[in-house]
Amino acid sequence: MSLVPSGIVSLLTDFGSEGPFVGIVKGVIAREAAEVKVIDLTHQVPPQDIALAGFWLWGAFRWLARGSVHLCVVDPGVGTDRSVIAVEAQDHYFVAPDNGVLSRVLAEPGIRQVIRVDPKRLGLRAPSRTFHGRDVMAPVAAWIASKKRRLDALGEACSPTLEPVPVPTRTADAIVGRVVAVDRFGNLITDIPGDWLGGLDTEVEIGEHRLRLVGTYQEGDRDECVGLVSSFGTLEIARREGSALETLGQGRGTEVRVRRGGSR
Amino acid sequence: MSLVPSGIVSLLTDFGSEGPFVGIVKGVIAREAAEVKVIDLTHQVPPQDIALAGFWLWGAFRWLARGSVHLCVVDPGVGTDRSVIAVEAQDHYFVAPDNGVLSRVLAEPGIRQVIRVDPKRLGLRAPSRTFHGRDVMAPVAAWIASKKRRLDALGEACSPTLEPVPVPTRTADAIVGRVVAVDRFGNLITDIPGDWLGGLDTEVEIGEHRLRLVGTYQEGDRDECVGLVSSFGTLEIARREGSALETLGQGRGTEVRVRRGGSR
Amino acid sequence: MSLVPSGIVSLLTDFGSEGPFVGIVKGVIAREAAEVKVIDLTHQVPPQDIALAGFWLWGAFRWLARGSVHLCVVDPGVGTDRSVIAVEAQDHYFVAPDNGVLSRVLAEPGIRQVIRVDPKRLGLRAPSRTFHGRDVMAPVAAWIASKKRRLDALGEACSPTLEPVPVPTRTADAIVGRVVAVDRFGNLITDIPGDWLGGLDTEVEIGEHRLRLVGTYQEGDRDECVGLVSSFGTLEIARREGSALETLGQGRGTEVRVRRGGSR
Repeated sequence: MSLVPSGIVSLLTDFGSEGPFVGIVKGVIAREAAEVKVIDLTHQVPPQDIALAGFWLWGAFRWLARGSVHLCVVDPGVGTDRSVIAVEAQDHYFVAPDNGVLSRVLAEPGIRQVIRVDPKRLGLRAPSRTFHGRDVMAPVAAWIASKKRRLDALGEACSPTLEPVPVPTRTADAIVGRVVAVDRFGNLITDIPGDWLGGLDTEVEIGEHRLRLVGTYQEGDRDECVGLVSSFGTLEIARREGSALETLGQGRGTEVRVRRGGSR
Repeated sequence: MSLVPSGIVSLLTDFGSEGPFVGIVKGVIAREAAEVKVIDLTHQVPPQDIALAGFWLWGAFRWLARGSVHLCVVDPGVGTDRSVIAVEAQDHYFVAPDNGVLSRVLAEPGIRQVIRVDPKRLGLRAPSRTFHGRDVMAPVAAWIASKKRRLDALGEACSPTLEPVPVPTRTADAIVGRVVAVDRFGNLITDIPGDWLGGLDTEVEIGEHRLRLVGTYQEGDRDECVGLVSSFGTLEIARREGSALETLGQGRGTEVRVRRGGSR
Repeated sequence: MSLVPSGIVSLLTDFGSEGPFVGIVKGVIAREAAEVKVIDLTHQVPPQDIALAGFWLWGAFRWLARGSVHLCVVDPGVGTDRSVIAVEAQDHYFVAPDNGVLSRVLAEPGIRQVIRVDPKRLGLRAPSRTFHGRDVMAPVAAWIASKKRRLDALGEACSPTLEPVPVPTRTADAIVGRVVAVDRFGNLITDIPGDWLGGLDTEVEIGEHRLRLVGTYQEGDRDECVGLVSSFGTLEIARREGSALETLGQGRGTEVRVRRGGSR
């Protein structure tokens, strides 16, 4: 049974909002398939930050309808011989440069197909050497979402490029992970699964700081940073109506430890 | 006669654009009701700035079609026992945390229903404790907009939390109000109704400055700040092709006085 | 044969994202024609920067479907007697204040109609004096896109205001142009047509710097700025995974020279 496209394309890029580049991609999608709905995830990924793009994508894609197409364009190698891939995994579709940006998504089970997109076979007019998001990936995403092309008509099967994704570890006494993203509020989002946390007798360590684990933002005091389960289901470090990023001076990449309390 | 939903949901949040959070909310709306059209008002409300969110919402909602649903998520109390409310007022629908963000909208006549949303009754799967915009408010807004649920099916009637909204005052000689928002151009938008202004014999005071009242931006000199009627229908202080914010060094909260001239 | 509207309106403004102004324009478009699809080009044009808005529009419009309506609101003269124009050119429609913002688009052949929009004839309720994007241009764009009104029903034919657009020059030995825009990556986009470039024996000069011409971003060394053909088809100056803007300290308006090498 093949996955039925939902008619939705999500967009995640490092294009920013200063110029018309995201709009051009949407224009091409609408030109190829007027009925497709486009949803922006974010375009504020720092330039060429493949790891952060991969994390936001991992955290976001499952909230869209099954069968959505996620177009992720962080593409420093545009114009070289790096491939564009189209993927079916976890009941969603993904279109991206084959540079590892899908590594976190593909680290989970549920990969059905990985196709190396062949622009020549698809009759795409000679793509530019600087904007394959527009010239290759947007049409491909539009065709998948609108059922104009199945994945296996886009090219040959291939093995995707996978970059190592750091994995949190746990022992009887401690969990070790790291801050993988920071949101607009200065909340530090980690990769430590929330269901590893032992409950309220658990202590979170980041840098020199030891923090309580709580349930909601409001349970922290106003000048206190706390740990809680983020909306992605992972441990997050937050300050009530303030910025944990500014308060702790710790950002992406920082190691975070969780120690189990005496009561367990 | 009940208000017919327009099929439009507007979104106003403090989520910023760095991460995929707005996109996730849109994904959930599309999942619940693919036919609903979503219009972003702004996501750049400063974190937890309920008063500014309430002003932008008040200024914007009436420009959308009658029966639109306005989803306003500025929600520092997420996960606590604060309620989510669904409101019919002024021929529009509103969905928001019950934290006063709707106070300015509800200060005007035309309230028809205020419902405390009951997630249990609605069969919503256990919401997270950190993102009710996604887990509760987005589905509710989608259901109202798509006519899947009427307001009275969402929960019981309640009295909304209303925060005091400062009201401009007027005497025979003077009007006193304040700057309630600043736009991207550095224009200072006040809460003084434009139809209170006496005409061109009126003088606007802000801080040490006394300004002329004019009709259009171009009527000011290049180095002059002037008063004029904003697109919201209230007094605005602007500098032609420049920033009144930077020129005057006065921002949100500043008192503004209008004195009637001798000719009246 | 008249041009068939595509049902798409693109938006390009200097409104920024802090307030609900873009959303209000979209709300009005949806109110006038619910079926129209809106695509944002950018709203981050610096305030009143008509030249940059005109360049982004020129670079972007052709990527949308034939018959799309491009609504471009950079409008310092709002409320004065400057007109709003509606244009059919190059198989697209344009709606904008008549302040020269369309000069670069209209410098190319293919102008079919230029109409001065007459708000009174159209039965528009008295527009504000500060937001014609909302009160005049949004309804007009919605009507064109939805085929509710043809261009010649909007007003009388007129001659548009055209600002001089600097044109790159070439002699046997050298091409001279300038940086017309900078994207989020710090790439310097020039107005020099890519098909004027002689190939890899060509040298690009900007300020004190002499740069190689390459095909893709990755062909530059990490600390090297290079020239290549931008996604708009013009010469661009870029630094691989870095910012040419920061590296060279040269931005918009800077003269760029291309010298042909000895092999030609």
